[in-house]
Amino acid sequence: MKVVIIGAGFGGLRLARKLNNKPGFEVMLIDRFNYHQFQPLFYQVATAGLDASNISFPLRKVFQKSKNVRIRLCNLEEILPTENKIITDKEEFNYDVLVLATGADTNFFGNKELAAHSFPMKSTVEALQIRHRLLQLFENAHSNDNEETLQRLMNIVIVGGGPTGVEISGALAEMKKYILPKDYPELDFSKMNIYLLEGADKTLAAMSEKSSMQSEKYLKKLGVEVLTNTMVKDYDGQNVALQSGKYIPAATVIWAAGIKGNIPNGIDKSLIAKGNRLKTDRHCLLHGYNNIYAIGDLAYMETPDFQNGLPQLAPVAMQQAALLADNLKLIERKSNPSKQIEFEYRDKGSMATVGRNLAVVDIPKPKLHFGGFFAWLIWMGLHLMLILGVKNRLFVFLNWVYNYITYDQNLRLIFKEFNRDDMPKGA
Amino acid sequence: MKVVIIGAGFGGLRLARKLNNKPGFEVMLIDRFNYHQFQPLFYQVATAGLDASNISFPLRKVFQKSKNVRIRLCNLEEILPTENKIITDKEEFNYDVLVLATGADTNFFGNKELAAHSFPMKSTVEALQIRHRLLQLFENAHSNDNEETLQRLMNIVIVGGGPTGVEISGALAEMKKYILPKDYPELDFSKMNIYLLEGADKTLAAMSEKSSMQSEKYLKKLGVEVLTNTMVKDYDGQNVALQSGKYIPAATVIWAAGIKGNIPNGIDKSLIAKGNRLKTDRHCLLHGYNNIYAIGDLAYMETPDFQNGLPQLAPVAMQQAALLADNLKLIERKSNPSKQIEFEYRDKGSMATVGRNLAVVDIPKPKLHFGGFFAWLIWMGLHLMLILGVKNRLFVFLNWVYNYITYDQNLRLIFKEFNRDDMPKGA
Repeated sequence: MKVVIIGAGFGGLRLARKLNNKPGFEVMLIDRFNYHQFQPLFYQVATAGLDASNISFPLRKVFQKSKNVRIRLCNLEEILPTENKIITDKEEFNYDVLVLATGADTNFFGNKELAAHSFPMKSTVEALQIRHRLLQLFENAHSNDNEETLQRLMNIVIVGGGPTGVEISGALAEMKKYILPKDYPELDFSKMNIYLLEGADKTLAAMSEKSSMQSEKYLKKLGVEVLTNTMVKDYDGQNVALQSGKYIPAATVIWAAGIKGNIPNGIDKSLIAKGNRLKTDRHCLLHGYNNIYAIGDLAYMETPDFQNGLPQLAPVAMQQAALLADNLKLIERKSNPSKQIEFEYRDKGSMATVGRNLAVVDIPKPKLHFGGFFAWLIWMGLHLMLILGVKNRLFVFLNWVYNYITYDQNLRLIFKEFNRDDMPKGA
Repeated sequence: MKVVIIGAGFGGLRLARKLNNKPGFEVMLIDRFNYHQFQPLFYQVATAGLDASNISFPLRKVFQKSKNVRIRLCNLEEILPTENKIITDKEEFNYDVLVLATGADTNFFGNKELAAHSFPMKSTVEALQIRHRLLQLFENAHSNDNEETLQRLMNIVIVGGGPTGVEISGALAEMKKYILPKDYPELDFSKMNIYLLEGADKTLAAMSEKSSMQSEKYLKKLGVEVLTNTMVKDYDGQNVALQSGKYIPAATVIWAAGIKGNIPNGIDKSLIAKGNRLKTDRHCLLHGYNNIYAIGDLAYMETPDFQNGLPQLAPVAMQQAALLADNLKLIERKSNPSKQIEFEYRDKGSMATVGRNLAVVDIPKPKLHFGGFFAWLIWMGLHLMLILGVKNRLFVFLNWVYNYITYDQNLRLIFKEFNRDDMPKGA
């Protein structure tokens, strides 16, 4: 069975590993990047606490010894379901089974100004770009004697009070407190403001009431200006316009306020559900197709426990991948279709970290909540366990120990590329 | 005394550190990058053995506790010697003493085609670009069924048999041997050719006869095609044209065949000497100026021991910086000018590494030569000592241990930036 998987995120990679060296399967894993990205730690790359390489794992290394998993670095251009074929910017591939695991990208809700001027953080490279921008900001602030411009440079606005927004706000507040005044003694960091804007009435709205309240308390303790019930209308690169009619002058806006599924070309548009996702049945099969599946952030699935659709989280993607691998093995063996299992999400809990010794953890069964130092330890241990590769795990750990002891993130490096990406013709 | 230093390489940084917190001095250190680059290990960044951050050290961290050293990230545009002022792309700075430590850049000898299509490696970012290109090459090779194009993708040409050329050729040969066939099982690496082209009749021509011979032997043992007495005429991105009239088809050319001083605008052009350098006296003072100095790769100085000019090496730059710091202190104290010391280079030896357990070391006094494993240990120990920062030293060491044990360089990651460098107006 020829299985083509599009996307090597938590879902796609897990599926490829489950089918690795399994008889009867030929797997082609396709991604835009040559590495798996550990998304939960993007914010630490952006704030110079971790190296991009620490949270990235070369795909080819995962499958070095594989007999049946092949890898291609290319962009999907179109699916031709009637021909069981996909077209990419480099090659065409035939499939028996196609699995879409293209994930989700930042949603600017159609606002082009916003998309042009604010910084998303949905890839390692985007996290690096935020890091470079932040450092460049303070460098440029030195040459500025206009007070209004200076204040604009010193204001950072984060939009979206979910885990990403909370985590990067907290990390920035700690940089402001511990590092930036030492690095830039000529600047007055009492003028630096970190705004966290959230449309709902609380941060971490998807978590427990206690976690929401605690995260807001922690953020305020670190000096973040948390503005709930605050919607952004527009951003022209100079001022953030709020729905209320007020403005916040800010040269840098980090947009973490929404995601939308990356729907590939060639799929029946009527399947598009809430959040720009593709509607699947409980076998992850796309409605109306018999050999195209969607898993992870791209998939919209309703289950008895989640009648309004599953949350877009890494554990959902990974559990769906595991289920799909099992079901594909049944199909390959031509077992009775009734043997196939239906998906239900086992929620093992959720967590977010705000800063040193500050995190919140919710566990659903038994219903438990932790905050503070203990939650922070759990958060670190779990993330270390989930990172791919012994060496990455060691290097993340060492960076954390170093950062914790020295109150310093010392990766404050601007590696900006010059223009040089010409490949010779025909390559 | 206001000292403005242009460039934070081995020379400029050493000088700033020598003047750090010294009474009577106000130092402004200016660089294009916000970090010091450890040039000797660029080749390991290019071949995915080290992270760019491992060999880069944030300048602001070095001077966090300094009372008198300030840092600016900007580009020098012009020197106005009559006004004791420099103009940059951001600010203007007045000086009592100006020290030019702008180093040297790649010399393509005026050949624009060559400059446009081949890869230089004189900065960390350029080393990263080589890494990205090499990895992308093999990814693209998969989608190619034209045999001629495939061979072109599999040929890598390195021009210049000095330490840089030798070291990167060796590292590439080891990648070909240990890693690439595992990463790309669909490609036939017996077709991959690594050519090292050198115009002179031997590699490492500046070192001892023994080192030259041994390095060539090591390279050949690793499978590098060493072509001495071979001059490059041109390169159009497809084929390397040799002076002999022959061609080598190659999609990738790494150019390590020459450097030239980075001469700033505003300096008397008649001072330009061999290698596009600025002629100085033995106090590093530019001829015809009384307060502009040049040190390191940019300076051309003749001494009794080096009547044809000093070599362009890190130790020369660092020794000149130390001497200049001492002399500036004498000037600041208004001591008798005759007390100032004249520069002479103390050559402590030179070395180059070719691969695992393979290096060559020359020591001039007493005249000694080492090769093989022992030389390789010396090379590693010395480079570890010279790297700035305890954390960088630890991480380089751990990477080396990992690479040595596993025969693997696992930083095979393509972090290519998208276009997003717009700063808001006025910043």
